[in-house]
Amino acid sequence: MTRPLWATTETGHPSAAMRFMVGDDLALDRVLLPFDIEASIAHVRGLATISALNRHDADALCAALEQLKSESESGDFTVDDRFEDGHSAIEWWLTERLGDLGKRVHLGRSRNDQSLVAIRLFMRDGLHRARSLTLDAASAALDVAQQHEHVPMPGYTHLQRAVPSSVGLWMASFAESFLDDAELIEATLAWIDRCPLGTAAGYGVNLPLARESVAAELGFSRLQLNPMSAQASRGKHEVQAISALWQAAQTVRRLAWDLTLFAAGEFGFVSIPAEMSTGSSIMPGKRNPDLPELLRAHASAISGAMFETMEAISLPSGYHRDLQRTKGPIVRAIEATNTAMQLLPDLIRGLRFNADRMRSAIDRSMLATDIAVRLAADGLPFRDAYRQLAERGTEGHDASPESSIADRVSPGACGDLRLETLRNRLADAMSRA
Amino acid sequence: MTRPLWATTETGHPSAAMRFMVGDDLALDRVLLPFDIEASIAHVRGLATISALNRHDADALCAALEQLKSESESGDFTVDDRFEDGHSAIEWWLTERLGDLGKRVHLGRSRNDQSLVAIRLFMRDGLHRARSLTLDAASAALDVAQQHEHVPMPGYTHLQRAVPSSVGLWMASFAESFLDDAELIEATLAWIDRCPLGTAAGYGVNLPLARESVAAELGFSRLQLNPMSAQASRGKHEVQAISALWQAAQTVRRLAWDLTLFAAGEFGFVSIPAEMSTGSSIMPGKRNPDLPELLRAHASAISGAMFETMEAISLPSGYHRDLQRTKGPIVRAIEATNTAMQLLPDLIRGLRFNADRMRSAIDRSMLATDIAVRLAADGLPFRDAYRQLAERGTEGHDASPESSIADRVSPGACGDLRLETLRNRLADAMSRA
Amino acid sequence: MTRPLWATTETGHPSAAMRFMVGDDLALDRVLLPFDIEASIAHVRGLATISALNRHDADALCAALEQLKSESESGDFTVDDRFEDGHSAIEWWLTERLGDLGKRVHLGRSRNDQSLVAIRLFMRDGLHRARSLTLDAASAALDVAQQHEHVPMPGYTHLQRAVPSSVGLWMASFAESFLDDAELIEATLAWIDRCPLGTAAGYGVNLPLARESVAAELGFSRLQLNPMSAQASRGKHEVQAISALWQAAQTVRRLAWDLTLFAAGEFGFVSIPAEMSTGSSIMPGKRNPDLPELLRAHASAISGAMFETMEAISLPSGYHRDLQRTKGPIVRAIEATNTAMQLLPDLIRGLRFNADRMRSAIDRSMLATDIAVRLAADGLPFRDAYRQLAERGTEGHDASPESSIADRVSPGACGDLRLETLRNRLADAMSRA
Amino acid sequence: MTRPLWATTETGHPSAAMRFMVGDDLALDRVLLPFDIEASIAHVRGLATISALNRHDADALCAALEQLKSESESGDFTVDDRFEDGHSAIEWWLTERLGDLGKRVHLGRSRNDQSLVAIRLFMRDGLHRARSLTLDAASAALDVAQQHEHVPMPGYTHLQRAVPSSVGLWMASFAESFLDDAELIEATLAWIDRCPLGTAAGYGVNLPLARESVAAELGFSRLQLNPMSAQASRGKHEVQAISALWQAAQTVRRLAWDLTLFAAGEFGFVSIPAEMSTGSSIMPGKRNPDLPELLRAHASAISGAMFETMEAISLPSGYHRDLQRTKGPIVRAIEATNTAMQLLPDLIRGLRFNADRMRSAIDRSMLATDIAVRLAADGLPFRDAYRQLAERGTEGHDASPESSIADRVSPGACGDLRLETLRNRLADAMSRA
Repeated sequence: MTRPLWATTETGHPSAAMRFMVGDDLALDRVLLPFDIEASIAHVRGLATISALNRHDADALCAALEQLKSESESGDFTVDDRFEDGHSAIEWWLTERLGDLGKRVHLGRSRNDQSLVAIRLFMRDGLHRARSLTLDAASAALDVAQQHEHVPMPGYTHLQRAVPSSVGLWMASFAESFLDDAELIEATLAWIDRCPLGTAAGYGVNLPLARESVAAELGFSRLQLNPMSAQASRGKHEVQAISALWQAAQTVRRLAWDLTLFAAGEFGFVSIPAEMSTGSSIMPGKRNPDLPELLRAHASAISGAMFETMEAISLPSGYHRDLQRTKGPIVRAIEATNTAMQLLPDLIRGLRFNADRMRSAIDRSMLATDIAVRLAADGLPFRDAYRQLAERGTEGHDASPESSIADRVSPGACGDLRLETLRNRLADAMSRA
Repeated sequence: MTRPLWATTETGHPSAAMRFMVGDDLALDRVLLPFDIEASIAHVRGLATISALNRHDADALCAALEQLKSESESGDFTVDDRFEDGHSAIEWWLTERLGDLGKRVHLGRSRNDQSLVAIRLFMRDGLHRARSLTLDAASAALDVAQQHEHVPMPGYTHLQRAVPSSVGLWMASFAESFLDDAELIEATLAWIDRCPLGTAAGYGVNLPLARESVAAELGFSRLQLNPMSAQASRGKHEVQAISALWQAAQTVRRLAWDLTLFAAGEFGFVSIPAEMSTGSSIMPGKRNPDLPELLRAHASAISGAMFETMEAISLPSGYHRDLQRTKGPIVRAIEATNTAMQLLPDLIRGLRFNADRMRSAIDRSMLATDIAVRLAADGLPFRDAYRQLAERGTEGHDASPESSIADRVSPGACGDLRLETLRNRLADAMSRA
Repeated sequence: MTRPLWATTETGHPSAAMRFMVGDDLALDRVLLPFDIEASIAHVRGLATISALNRHDADALCAALEQLKSESESGDFTVDDRFEDGHSAIEWWLTERLGDLGKRVHLGRSRNDQSLVAIRLFMRDGLHRARSLTLDAASAALDVAQQHEHVPMPGYTHLQRAVPSSVGLWMASFAESFLDDAELIEATLAWIDRCPLGTAAGYGVNLPLARESVAAELGFSRLQLNPMSAQASRGKHEVQAISALWQAAQTVRRLAWDLTLFAAGEFGFVSIPAEMSTGSSIMPGKRNPDLPELLRAHASAISGAMFETMEAISLPSGYHRDLQRTKGPIVRAIEATNTAMQLLPDLIRGLRFNADRMRSAIDRSMLATDIAVRLAADGLPFRDAYRQLAERGTEGHDASPESSIADRVSPGACGDLRLETLRNRLADAMSRA
Repeated sequence: MTRPLWATTETGHPSAAMRFMVGDDLALDRVLLPFDIEASIAHVRGLATISALNRHDADALCAALEQLKSESESGDFTVDDRFEDGHSAIEWWLTERLGDLGKRVHLGRSRNDQSLVAIRLFMRDGLHRARSLTLDAASAALDVAQQHEHVPMPGYTHLQRAVPSSVGLWMASFAESFLDDAELIEATLAWIDRCPLGTAAGYGVNLPLARESVAAELGFSRLQLNPMSAQASRGKHEVQAISALWQAAQTVRRLAWDLTLFAAGEFGFVSIPAEMSTGSSIMPGKRNPDLPELLRAHASAISGAMFETMEAISLPSGYHRDLQRTKGPIVRAIEATNTAMQLLPDLIRGLRFNADRMRSAIDRSMLATDIAVRLAADGLPFRDAYRQLAERGTEGHDASPESSIADRVSPGACGDLRLETLRNRLADAMSRA
């Protein structure tokens, strides 16, 4: 390991303590490295802007950083255990190539600053990917809704068959939920769209940093102005980012629950794509919906990451090393969500429906509600209509699953799904990508 | 208790089961009643729009509902244990006054629908109040920042004295954090600004409900279109609402931590207003920062409410009675947050600072960083500047706490706080109230 | 409100701050009052033991405390908003009756001390009740297992029908789980069986308190010796108590999930007692398993209470007012659990099974595993047996649901349930009550 | 990857879905492999006991398994991406060496069974290590308590100086807390001391497995009898294991909080061992308590792991693939806790105390409580004693920090620490290791 900057004397760290202190940092910093480099380049440009670096030195530093980026992308360079963390790796690389000039990349910033901005850029990138994948899931659900728009299936409340519904309604519900989720991710992206770079260790620096231009170069529309507030956003921003991801995970969980039920023999409504289910090691002839089950479990991992972060940041103002431990949960939450979300379109599009099973699961008593509403709309007190149907049944009333879903014309219901409204909303969202 | 609508035969509920099933519903429904009434009025108007009610009947129903609202506000009517829940109470009131006409208020909607919209309106109201109170806290912090803008105090990292800072920087950090928090509440309000009314039990209804005009009357800008998606937002929207409240609670927690430390004898930087602290029952001459401590604990209650909701909604599509249990956490989270937030302005404005203690806590070694940056900006490699100061100390360098904070001119830092930027942001936010 | 002891001057608490600081304390202290009185009596006896009170005074104090207890039980006395908290209420009562002598009840203890021991006694009592109710649930499950020991039902993995199982196996699984849960509650009771009384505000007191005899009088077998450690157990003990309750809640949740599925029309295996389900307000002819659904949601409330407590006690040593906020979660967790648990026996015993539906849900392919094991036990490589059955089916092999469950003779399985082992374990546990 | 057993036809898993389904399984199974092998050996012995394997075959299988164990310990064999999971790796190894005989290791058990018992053994091992490390921490704290038994330091409540205390009292509080924590781990070990092996996929198997002797060979004292209950303990047992670890983490967190405060310049009571703190990259002359800060953050990771598990197991009876995701949290919780705990003895023993700073932080007003108690014990009403001291101060009363802590003679307090009681308790606990 390179000798830490603060090690003015040989402290002889016992390996156990050091190992605990470093934790997963190297692995996490490998994920964060490209963002750290990107921010370092912007910082160097900013120093040139205020003439704290001359143009020639700035260009040399940026060129070296670009080279590091490409070597790191190609795998020729990696943050391994020669280094304490990613920041040290960057400094080592620059001084190897540029000598003392390499060290000037740190002028006017601190490691806190560097971590804060690298994680922010990572979160931004991760949320952008998550948003895009969530829209892809919405798109798949919308396609399937359209394809099976009028196919009857039972509608449940309390897991009891309640009223006729349709595959269109069911699938469109996921389309709309995913659109909502993507919208919250977008709002969260707007909320965290603030550049913390230039706040140093939480108290600013005695240089007139060109924070606005650095922020703009990094694609941020605003500054986190106050350095203590910027520092205090560590973990705090992560919580909202994870909360936004959780919303998508919750929609996935609802879908996963539905699929594990509807794929059960008792329902038999859908089958999961073969490549997303598995056989049993001991029970021949059985297909298990493993992927939906693992997708269902995914939301819990996101909750866990959120609470880990929330509890960890019960802290006074200022940087504390505790904050290092907020890196793991956000990286895990983003990577896990995006891995999960990218499976959704194939899963959704690969569903096969058993229209006969679904239709035959709609018995006549399920038509009673619609009939009761019709009677009530014609003036019969609802309670009386209700009792009359409860006692005499639905015989004599003209109704079928098909007519029931066709007549359900309240906006958004089976008879008026308004898929084009959702499709327009999706197109709008995609155009803002 | 009134006989439940579904009790076609006498079921003889054992009181224990019924008590468990009702839970806190009556207490919660007392909070929700005005919102339930408001939505009922809009629903009645909507039924008139599609001629499912004639104008005369609609007016009679609305008048009765308005009367219920005012009797409930005055305390003349209360949702007590005569009723199963708030919805039954409204129906009872209407049928007492209007007979069978009273029952027609339910035409085309279900209790799920009613709960969903009442809670949505309650959340909207609660988040609006929370946003406004958060802005009030920002305003107080900004005033105090301005008042003590240049007063030196130590800046800490790792709870170790690090560099000179100022009361202005510290207080402005809360102003900016609260502004951020209010912005997230605003974004959350925009996100939940969707009307679920008209989705019935999750599958719509066979009436061409005037959902758009009803939504507009209730002040929503959009519909939750798909009824299953609307149903699935139960609990899910609550999680994001609580997440937004948690952000404000987290800023409060940081302030509370700082105050309990800075009010400790060892620091002695601030004193808490007397009416927000207490004496000891056994230790004369001691003032305890009880209010900050309780404000610190507040964030945990919000986290608890969030987790309770997240775990409860691991469910398949469709209504399940589990969802009833999401009412408690959201009502608790909103009420507790707003009770806490309204104490902030008096607490912040009532802080008394001990300028001498704070200044004398800044020793010369804390000036080293600024000096090192100066040397490095002048071309000395930072590591060399760093080592030189570590070895020889700061003697011989011209620096004082006052000059240090004045020289910290990176945007947002002590020497360039840009309070007017924050004040403008606050004014903008308030104008959008 | 009585004037707080620490209010040496009139501080004129603004009602909002005071209301926030008091929070739910009055309601919670009504629950805790009998335990506070019980501990107060023991404390008085202890003071007499070390002659810090004479016997006559001690008797007078104890008599007054006993009277308060009985008036509070009868409802003649209540901790209402005349008082800051339950402790003040007790002091007020004693001084009303005994003048200055009344105040001597506080000699050698502090309010922290008093809260700590009252909550400990409440937890002990609550966990005892929870344990007993959990054993009652085990007993009910065992009875039903015995009654339907050999009734076939499908066994599921991944919610897919897998192998024949039996009602006996299913019900016995709840019996054993509840026995396990009760055992953890018992271990938790043993763990918290330590008396904190006599640790004052966390630093002990300059009196040779008779802590051992006081502990014995209160039924504790041990002391929490170190006063700071005792203080630090606040919230910490609560977490383990809630964790133990959560285990029972998790078993209940599994049962509730099974019931909501098995009561669904697609399964149709069981029906819930009528008084524990409800009809639909809009869908005649439908019974909803409301009680199981609410029981399922119960576990989440317990998790929420646990997390609230865990996050709140990220604190340095010593009492902090934050700890007051740990009262709510433990009281809620205990009361909610015991309310839920007492419904279990009637629910379990009231289940009605549809043996025909269950048996006909077992198709021949579900017999394959048992056949494969038989072939493998006879020497055929399992993979070959597996493939053979997967390809050729189970025709030609002698097997039926009844023979399959009878042959499943691994200890604990359908063919060897060993209910008497569970019954003995239950009897042992009950004898330790 | 080896072809999964259930892949009777080529399903062509898309790598994304497969990668998601495998998740961290390979890394986790590397940790679990030795336990899986140990259980496999016991299972083979059990099959021989019931003559389902002949002695010769059983010996061959056990020898091969022993060899795998030693090659895996030496690093010559590793569970890498040739395998789907650790179970497949074992099967592959055995069939490579023993052909068809290798496959017979699976006779009478399933992968669920195998996972369940491997994780149980891992938990047992991990909790044993955690218990031992917790006792080591208690031992270190006890030594330091003894060494500085009578050294005065201020005692705090609400972070306000309250009464004189001692290093002995403070350190002994950690000794007792760690003893309590170890006791809960022990109780948890007793609770999970049940062998699940022999329950197959949750419904038992049609072989008269020698479950008792297998359990005994694996060192379990009891069976999990009912197969469905055994299956349902997956995740559930993990929650209690994590809860027990959390208790130790919470004691560590309290210590960490105290150390970060007491090491702050304002207190200046202790210094952290140099190798457990770090310098600042930008602020020369500052030592940061990084290790305590990271230890403080540790508790949050444990909470996160617990909630991830709790939320994931809201499931009906029977195995679901979701349960695979409970492996990660328990492995993380155990490994992180034991890594953290092993640093405690060096940290505690390496603390250096500044006796002068601590004593001079005790001002005379802190003596008031003891004096008030003395006056009250002599008959003055406590409130009067209290007011008198509040008004006139402690002058004229004979008291010093030393006398105050010497006079605090309630059992466990500074004047009667009873370290030998704690030492005896420690010795007892260690003898049960």
